[in-house]
Amino acid sequence: MKKTALIMAGGKGERFWPKSRINLPKQFLSLTGDGKTMIQLTVERISSIVDIKDVYVATNQLYKNLVLEQLQGIPEENILCEPVGKNTAPCIGLGAIHAHVHHDDAIMIVLPSDHLIKNQKAFVETLREACDVAEKGENLVTIGITPNYPETGYGYIHYDKQNCLLSANAVKKFVEKPNIELAEEYLKSGEYLWNSGMFVWKVSTILHNYKELMPDIYEGLCTIQNSIGTDSYTEILNKEFQTFRSESVDYGIMEHAKNIYSLPGNFGWDDVGSWLAVGRIKENDVNGNIVNGNVVTVDTKDCIIEGQDKLIATVGLCDIVIVDTKDAILVCDKKSTGNIKKVLSQLRDLDKICYL
Amino acid sequence: MKKTALIMAGGKGERFWPKSRINLPKQFLSLTGDGKTMIQLTVERISSIVDIKDVYVATNQLYKNLVLEQLQGIPEENILCEPVGKNTAPCIGLGAIHAHVHHDDAIMIVLPSDHLIKNQKAFVETLREACDVAEKGENLVTIGITPNYPETGYGYIHYDKQNCLLSANAVKKFVEKPNIELAEEYLKSGEYLWNSGMFVWKVSTILHNYKELMPDIYEGLCTIQNSIGTDSYTEILNKEFQTFRSESVDYGIMEHAKNIYSLPGNFGWDDVGSWLAVGRIKENDVNGNIVNGNVVTVDTKDCIIEGQDKLIATVGLCDIVIVDTKDAILVCDKKSTGNIKKVLSQLRDLDKICYL
Repeated sequence: MKKTALIMAGGKGERFWPKSRINLPKQFLSLTGDGKTMIQLTVERISSIVDIKDVYVATNQLYKNLVLEQLQGIPEENILCEPVGKNTAPCIGLGAIHAHVHHDDAIMIVLPSDHLIKNQKAFVETLREACDVAEKGENLVTIGITPNYPETGYGYIHYDKQNCLLSANAVKKFVEKPNIELAEEYLKSGEYLWNSGMFVWKVSTILHNYKELMPDIYEGLCTIQNSIGTDSYTEILNKEFQTFRSESVDYGIMEHAKNIYSLPGNFGWDDVGSWLAVGRIKENDVNGNIVNGNVVTVDTKDCIIEGQDKLIATVGLCDIVIVDTKDAILVCDKKSTGNIKKVLSQLRDLDKICYL
Repeated sequence: MKKTALIMAGGKGERFWPKSRINLPKQFLSLTGDGKTMIQLTVERISSIVDIKDVYVATNQLYKNLVLEQLQGIPEENILCEPVGKNTAPCIGLGAIHAHVHHDDAIMIVLPSDHLIKNQKAFVETLREACDVAEKGENLVTIGITPNYPETGYGYIHYDKQNCLLSANAVKKFVEKPNIELAEEYLKSGEYLWNSGMFVWKVSTILHNYKELMPDIYEGLCTIQNSIGTDSYTEILNKEFQTFRSESVDYGIMEHAKNIYSLPGNFGWDDVGSWLAVGRIKENDVNGNIVNGNVVTVDTKDCIIEGQDKLIATVGLCDIVIVDTKDAILVCDKKSTGNIKKVLSQLRDLDKICYL
């Protein structure tokens, strides 16, 4: 069966400020040091399964040119610009109707554009297995990540060890982000996976689920679908999207649907959720520092330092993140990377929008 | 009696890197935010006692133009360029012979160029009293600072409460930098002052002491003195200075001389020994931060942030010093400001001398 992919690339990447900006969010940056941006790596990673002509990218108008520049060979009409961010349910629905119009039915692989994966081979194998499961019925397949510590920042997937289809397990339940005690239980049980936001299904299956579980959004999607290829497409897309409620596909579909299967992913996944991810991705020096650029460190350990041309000298620091850019420097304690968004809100309040 | 001053301005100010550089050390910077540099403040402070025409500045050739630019009205021949730094004894001797040639005898006030004083009026009063004591005999007068905490980074002056001359006390002994226990004893006794490096004496008195206590240096000084105003001055100065041993006036003269008096200074003195001094000089905000420039702080307290044009954003920091300049940024824990010199030595090792 024809295989297509929907890459979700509408995020603002605020947690990677000041390197990521409103005009250049995380998915369009190279964080691995190999010069390839995260969205390029995402598309490259599936290139043995999905032809670039069958890759759709859901993003917003602001990033359309970035997508065209960074993804060589992608048809312009495959760049789907959401008029407004309404979470993943409307976004994935939009991808599904476009794939339906182009291919009638097909396998649809849904991937975030800003995750990193170390073991490409294992990832591709898992994805192929997921495609097989998806093709074998009206199944919704999610790629879970085998947890290696009790993370409280992700949702979890509770799967049924006894109930298998090929190499996938039936999903008992999607659960919200747990507290630390619950997360430790989940980890110990061996029956939970992290919800990575990577899905595989047939276009027909997911559209059927929208019809059943989110009929209001389904109706809007149908209206949009009828306008694809016509002059009124943009107008209708804008109008319908405005009316959509903001909803995740997890909550809107996955938590209520039948025939959900999960494949455990063991391929060195990282959602690159904050600057701390750089510490997991890159190799550190003998003092535990990750240093890039024109940097001199004295009595400095476990720091992440992203320099530019300007010399950065550090003395007596521990667990600090320093990021220099053309017009802004961030100095942030590792424990506080979650509060970088407060900088952005202050910048908005102070009308220093040029730094956003 | 005619009053002259010798301002010692040859220091490299390494502890204020990256704002101070080899080409622009601390004494030529404004750290108070009033736009006046430290050497300008030093000269302005004594302007009611010493005419600018009678101010000598000992520095090195590298800084001669800075002195001329910053001290309006100073005669060029009053800028005494030490060919090489040999600590304070040769430097002060050089000042003394120049004052002797110009004025035969005069009062000579010796001041570092990089100290800050809050209460100008009290300072001037103390200085006038010191001049009176110096004039009243062959006395060497030092301005001590009444300690308010057990500092271990300064030498101390042990004075004799019973033995007074005008408002000065005879000095029993100069003592080296103490350990913390000794410093606490000194503080408790009420008989010790910090050695500030500010001295007052007659030119004739100090030259007599050089003759008695440092005859080798005295001989060289006489040779230099004979060349003042001749074409061979620079050549002879260079030659003699090279032969001088490096010695402080404290060790070479003050610890061995007779008739030493000390006046307790209570005028809000700060030797601006490190970036921490900025925390004592400038007013901090409600979170204890001293912030200058284009800065946004989130959950940040007790930090010193000296910005430039570039935005500096801090998140979750405590007790950190951040100094941005045109080409270098320093991020330093407050406890580690003493190790900034290690940055400079690394920069030398790495041949990044443009940042020195």
